[in-house]
Amino acid sequence: MVEKALNYAKQHEEQFLEDLRYLVRQPSIAAQDKGVKETAEMVKKMMEDVGVQADIVPVEGGQPVVYGHLDAGRSRTLLFYDHYDVQPPEPLDEWSHPPFGGEVHDGSLYARGVSDNKGNIVARLKAIEAFIKTAGTVPVNIKFVIEGEEEIGSVNFHKFVEAERARLASDAVIWESGSRDVSGRPTITFGNKGICYIQLDCRGANQDLHSSRAAIVENPAWRLVQALATMKDLETDRCLVGGFYDDVLPPTAREIEMMEKNPVDEKETLAQLGLRGFLLELTGIELSKKLLYQPTCTICGLWSGYTGQGTKTVMPKEAHAKIDHRLVPNQTALDIFEKVKRHLAKHGFADIQIQLLSHEDPGQSSLDAPIVPVILETARTTYGVEPVVNPRSAGSGPMYLFNRLLGIATISGVGVGYYKSGAHAPDEHIRLEDYHKGIEHVIRIMAEFGKA
Amino acid sequence: MVEKALNYAKQHEEQFLEDLRYLVRQPSIAAQDKGVKETAEMVKKMMEDVGVQADIVPVEGGQPVVYGHLDAGRSRTLLFYDHYDVQPPEPLDEWSHPPFGGEVHDGSLYARGVSDNKGNIVARLKAIEAFIKTAGTVPVNIKFVIEGEEEIGSVNFHKFVEAERARLASDAVIWESGSRDVSGRPTITFGNKGICYIQLDCRGANQDLHSSRAAIVENPAWRLVQALATMKDLETDRCLVGGFYDDVLPPTAREIEMMEKNPVDEKETLAQLGLRGFLLELTGIELSKKLLYQPTCTICGLWSGYTGQGTKTVMPKEAHAKIDHRLVPNQTALDIFEKVKRHLAKHGFADIQIQLLSHEDPGQSSLDAPIVPVILETARTTYGVEPVVNPRSAGSGPMYLFNRLLGIATISGVGVGYYKSGAHAPDEHIRLEDYHKGIEHVIRIMAEFGKA
Repeated sequence: MVEKALNYAKQHEEQFLEDLRYLVRQPSIAAQDKGVKETAEMVKKMMEDVGVQADIVPVEGGQPVVYGHLDAGRSRTLLFYDHYDVQPPEPLDEWSHPPFGGEVHDGSLYARGVSDNKGNIVARLKAIEAFIKTAGTVPVNIKFVIEGEEEIGSVNFHKFVEAERARLASDAVIWESGSRDVSGRPTITFGNKGICYIQLDCRGANQDLHSSRAAIVENPAWRLVQALATMKDLETDRCLVGGFYDDVLPPTAREIEMMEKNPVDEKETLAQLGLRGFLLELTGIELSKKLLYQPTCTICGLWSGYTGQGTKTVMPKEAHAKIDHRLVPNQTALDIFEKVKRHLAKHGFADIQIQLLSHEDPGQSSLDAPIVPVILETARTTYGVEPVVNPRSAGSGPMYLFNRLLGIATISGVGVGYYKSGAHAPDEHIRLEDYHKGIEHVIRIMAEFGKA
Repeated sequence: MVEKALNYAKQHEEQFLEDLRYLVRQPSIAAQDKGVKETAEMVKKMMEDVGVQADIVPVEGGQPVVYGHLDAGRSRTLLFYDHYDVQPPEPLDEWSHPPFGGEVHDGSLYARGVSDNKGNIVARLKAIEAFIKTAGTVPVNIKFVIEGEEEIGSVNFHKFVEAERARLASDAVIWESGSRDVSGRPTITFGNKGICYIQLDCRGANQDLHSSRAAIVENPAWRLVQALATMKDLETDRCLVGGFYDDVLPPTAREIEMMEKNPVDEKETLAQLGLRGFLLELTGIELSKKLLYQPTCTICGLWSGYTGQGTKTVMPKEAHAKIDHRLVPNQTALDIFEKVKRHLAKHGFADIQIQLLSHEDPGQSSLDAPIVPVILETARTTYGVEPVVNPRSAGSGPMYLFNRLLGIATISGVGVGYYKSGAHAPDEHIRLEDYHKGIEHVIRIMAEFGKA
């Protein structure tokens, strides 16, 4: 069954490319609400065309989810998470080819969203088409959840997942994207960090004052600085918020082994960032452990008073900071938010307003889940190399809704991009070879995972 | 002699007004280098017209000083410090009358710079004219120093004073301006604070990074916050820079008495600023002492990373702060600058760059100087009220070049403005009555001071 499907894919490479070009030519910019709903309709139609039942599910306050399912009466169900929205294409003058032109040059397809994440949507649909056209069915039950707000932080997506728990039951989730590194190896991960992004607002007088008044009027910039200073120990880079580390799980021996096999490229990274060393002079496995297994407390933005050229003798009326905490299992974003609030109050800064701007929990799947050997073995077969395997990534995303809230093993790293694909950047593109390999990989995953 | 001069002034009120309108119609915006040199020439000519010898003295890198002198063979010399430059008139649409129109409405003359400080230049020249025209001489030797960069921080003016020490020798300096309060009382002061305005620049990686990297790369925003936190104790509002208070002189019993007579209007000030209380819950004489006799350490500006709407998960490549220290006798700005540098190095922040953006020393004249009773007595006679007397103001300026560097008693508060004159603001104006009273006051000061 798998050979026939692979053959079909081989024979229909041209058509599969055209199907992808059709989708990437349609803008779907969530940040600008441009073409998003039209794209949801297109994706629904493409699903139906390959034999997947599709619904457009409205999400309160947000863009709809395209939900698809194909029950083939198998014992296992595989769920694909994707998103049909894309980043804004700006700055337009840095593109060599039109961002919604879908042009092919030197064996690569250029378009905003082709790597992140429309190439993967179409690759997954084409893998299904290959089975349906050659065997009339698929080797594993299939579900699709394709959201429309990933590029603006999946702000409403949790409502969909929370409301649709029953419909989303599956044995594994394949996450949205993946890319091959400089040596052609796909990078597989099993989770990511969470995030708790807050803003602190400290206010003083009702107007900026001549700075001579600072002798007798409280300066909100000083209050904010002192409040921030209570939150972090620079010597150890530890967050001083009470209970911050309570729920932090250390890496297991197996996870440490994984990280040791794939260390940070220290020399290259330092050179690229113009730095002499990493934080706390970390190196080797300690560096990897800090990157992937320690939560952070990061000032992302800070502003108050006069920030122009030269001098202005002003005492600011307000001061602000944006802070993100990257969280690790088993921390949760709302718990950390409460802890930060308590910390500020305890240190005498209850007057400082604290806003929760965005939050996602961390999550990581078990390395023993049945999908794990399937992904790795099919990656070896498809790419002819040993995949890079990391227990988790240092970034964040809505993955926790699946691996933590629904408790489904969720794997990231299956996709059609490569290390130069430029997601979020001008000239985003994928190599046609990677697109077709990506389809092959999904065909093999479906076949292998369906064998149980 | 004084009566004839006063009579002359009375009879020439209309002409004196026209002479002022002539000067205020000429823009002289130092910040925009607009009309400044032309105005210096006009002021020189106006001096010569009343019988004062005048020179335009170039200042390296800056606008020229108009220096004037009239040696009448008296034992005492009075020096007037003024400036012929003005603030920019913007925002233009907030003016009811053209800022360089010199229009009279409801007994007031409207023009940018009419209160700060051209009205005083002309009032002082007209007082001299009144003596010359009626007695052929003046009762006291006169010097004028009229600079062209006061509104941009007198950045080069110190070069002139340092180079011209000998020519500037005098028995007293009358500072540029003064204004009457809501009850018609002029406010006399004998000094002001200094300023040491610095900028701290802290740098990290050579680019803003995805904030997930904050786990392993040093964040310059945190370093700056922690460096700032070492500089100030919030509980006491004390600056923690080593040696910061070494040269601070406490107020004398007489100065305390002066402040007690003229307390801060606490209720009014708090209401105006929308505050519940002053810093450290200060009140009464302690509030005045803090305002006038304690130096400050003020964050005027703070910026790093993302400061827009919503979230951006970025780790900044740099962080900056602007800080001003308002200084009191006998601190000096350059000494404080060195102390801040040492403080940062001592606390492990030697990598943070520190720039000195502007500096002026504090200075205060002796309350026993012979000019003091002259000013107060003539103010009583002229205005028919008891003047408000404060030992010093909380602001800064180049006054230290006279009262500290040259050691000449320097008095501020003789002038033609009133509490609503709006220096630096749209609709700057003076009341014609105050203009003519100001001329009277100067006539009386010259006569009284010349009696010795």
